Amino acid sequence: MPRRIDHVAIIVRNLEDALTFYRDTLGVVPTEIKEVPTEQVRIAFLPLGGPAGSQIELIEPTLANASLQKFLERRGEGLHHLCLEVEDIDGALQDLKDKGAAVLDQQPRVAAEGRAIFLHPKATNGVLLELLQK
Amino acid sequence: MPRRIDHVAIIVRNLEDALTFYRDTLGVVPTEIKEVPTEQVRIAFLPLGGPAGSQIELIEPTLANASLQKFLERRGEGLHHLCLEVEDIDGALQDLKDKGAAVLDQQPRVAAEGRAIFLHPKATNGVLLELLQK
Repeated sequence: MPRRIDHVAIIVRNLEDALTFYRDTLGVVPTEIKEVPTEQVRIAFLPLGGPAGSQIELIEPTLANASLQKFLERRGEGLHHLCLEVEDIDGALQDLKDKGAAVLDQQPRVAAEGRAIFLHPKATNGVLLELLQK
Repeated sequence: MPRRIDHVAIIVRNLEDALTFYRDTLGVVPTEIKEVPTEQVRIAFLPLGGPAGSQIELIEPTLANASLQKFLERRGEGLHHLCLEVEDIDGALQDLKDKGAAVLDQQPRVAAEGRAIFLHPKATNGVLLELLQK
């Protein structure tokens, strides 16, 4: 069973523009703005609720990131995915496979925050769901 | 500044169907399934991370709920809104108004969990954002 919400990811066209709302108006201070070349994104991490809290991630895809650019074209900016932390990603993946869930990864991938798998929205009532072991 | 993520709301057509994934496959046990006639919805509350944690809310609109039915038609099931807890909703509302943010409520409304305001997605990079004082 997942332990907690790790982050909620919001896809935006431009990080600096998004920060004028999330940082300047709402008052959530980013701890880090990170370029992740392997994922063709820039991410601003906005922690809420202290060290054990969850965070908002603002994600700006590079122009070369075809799948996220397609998402932006089709759906616009907004909520993109939900990430839940699990203790044991290999066990969680095996359990989901045993139950016949539509996992998008046959093995955990290396994400910005740890090892992760994604579930297809058709299996999760429309939510792109990430499970993450930190 | 918001203290924590209170909940992430997922809109679904049918709660029982959604629980076959979130409860039976993923293993998150709902604490309560509640009918909220004033909001024309049924909500399943799925807590994560203990008493101080955040939760997933699965929301099934009744057929009479025109605005959520329209959302389902247009976007399908999936992530619907993000709710952040604040200490003082009146102060937060005044602060947002002073900063010219597009608030949808001129006064806090009574929500299922406390007093709340919503911000328009055009002000928040596409996210329907709720601020809540419990």
